[in-house]
Amino acid sequence: MNDFNPEIIKVIGFDADDTLWVNEPFYRETEARFCDILSRYMPPAEINARLFRVEVDNLNLYGYGSKAFVLSLIETAVDISEGKVTAGEISRIIELGKAQINTKNPLLPGVPEVLEVLSRRYRLIVVTKGDLLDQERKLKNSGIADYFHHVEIMSDKKTDNYRRLLAHLDVTPDQFLMVGNSLKSDVVPVLTLGGYAIHVPFHVTWQHEELDPHDIPVGHFFTAEKLRGILSVFGL
Amino acid sequence: MNDFNPEIIKVIGFDADDTLWVNEPFYRETEARFCDILSRYMPPAEINARLFRVEVDNLNLYGYGSKAFVLSLIETAVDISEGKVTAGEISRIIELGKAQINTKNPLLPGVPEVLEVLSRRYRLIVVTKGDLLDQERKLKNSGIADYFHHVEIMSDKKTDNYRRLLAHLDVTPDQFLMVGNSLKSDVVPVLTLGGYAIHVPFHVTWQHEELDPHDIPVGHFFTAEKLRGILSVFGL
Repeated sequence: MNDFNPEIIKVIGFDADDTLWVNEPFYRETEARFCDILSRYMPPAEINARLFRVEVDNLNLYGYGSKAFVLSLIETAVDISEGKVTAGEISRIIELGKAQINTKNPLLPGVPEVLEVLSRRYRLIVVTKGDLLDQERKLKNSGIADYFHHVEIMSDKKTDNYRRLLAHLDVTPDQFLMVGNSLKSDVVPVLTLGGYAIHVPFHVTWQHEELDPHDIPVGHFFTAEKLRGILSVFGL
Repeated sequence: MNDFNPEIIKVIGFDADDTLWVNEPFYRETEARFCDILSRYMPPAEINARLFRVEVDNLNLYGYGSKAFVLSLIETAVDISEGKVTAGEISRIIELGKAQINTKNPLLPGVPEVLEVLSRRYRLIVVTKGDLLDQERKLKNSGIADYFHHVEIMSDKKTDNYRRLLAHLDVTPDQFLMVGNSLKSDVVPVLTLGGYAIHVPFHVTWQHEELDPHDIPVGHFFTAEKLRGILSVFGL
């Protein structure tokens, strides 16, 4: 990408979970405790496989976010126990979910510094498909809310969702750059529209977000190992 | 309200549930079936009272919408059964929730005609605190999506949420008019900011949305018995 002119960018979208703050590891931790609660019914690997199937089956109906996750945990518990799960176990699963929703998600390294520099030149927004209330709470707890113009919650992060987002923001694709840890949700749909994207990988990715790197369309695409690395894309 | 000049309005916000389409009666129906499932533990009136307390206690954590509702149903079932609720009963509650999420919400009378007339002169938006995916689905199913510029989901509908909404829309309070069935969520906070509101009552209101009419601040406030009645406010 030698022909990138950072001057034409008007809006930079930041994915939130595992781009600005740690998130997926808390889901993994909740899953591990969920497997502990249900260990008398099935081994962990099988429980996780069943949970993943339930979550994907429920995506159209429940969408993304922590409440969808907890509902799928409960459904999986009924399912794998073959109807034997107890009210006490259901209650512990509900409490696991509440504890996760109440988690303070720590910022990833370099986040405030990068936002401080970029917010002086660009309009920054948060672009996420989680749960609105969850994401507002995480942003408020994070101490970085003031760097962002606003939060855009999308029910999914497919090309059509980004097309509507850009129309709503009143910018053309080549005035928009997206930063995120998911090739599938943050990079590919934006490149497809003709926008720019910077991929900042995170060490844990939900199976549903995984993608064969060969499936990435040719486009205005950069990779940074850590968030601080994105500044060099802007010549900063 | 003799001094209202409809020419100064730029954006009209419409609440969705029970303003554009029927919603609350489906929640009531789910609650009735929920009481049937749990009838061996407690009489319906007591179950409903316990459910309401659980819902209100969970509002800060879960927010509004159908997933929050289903999680509170499950928690209430564990609670009122004193730990005796069975996996089969939990499973039926999950299915009740899924059926409700899949419900096609019928439009209220006059909705397309009113939107057709107003959309020629004003920017119309949907302003709701439900679940984004739910509301997008309902809007898509309704056939009236094209009348709206976009959907604004708020985590709550208090004065501060509306203040941020108006900043985001780049309009002043006196350029904004809100239409909705909830005095508490659609009328009072908008009047407080100096905006306009039309209250269109619906015959069922969730207890949490109820308000003493004496608590309404003096302001630019109209009432219409049916949605069609709002056109006369605009001299149409």
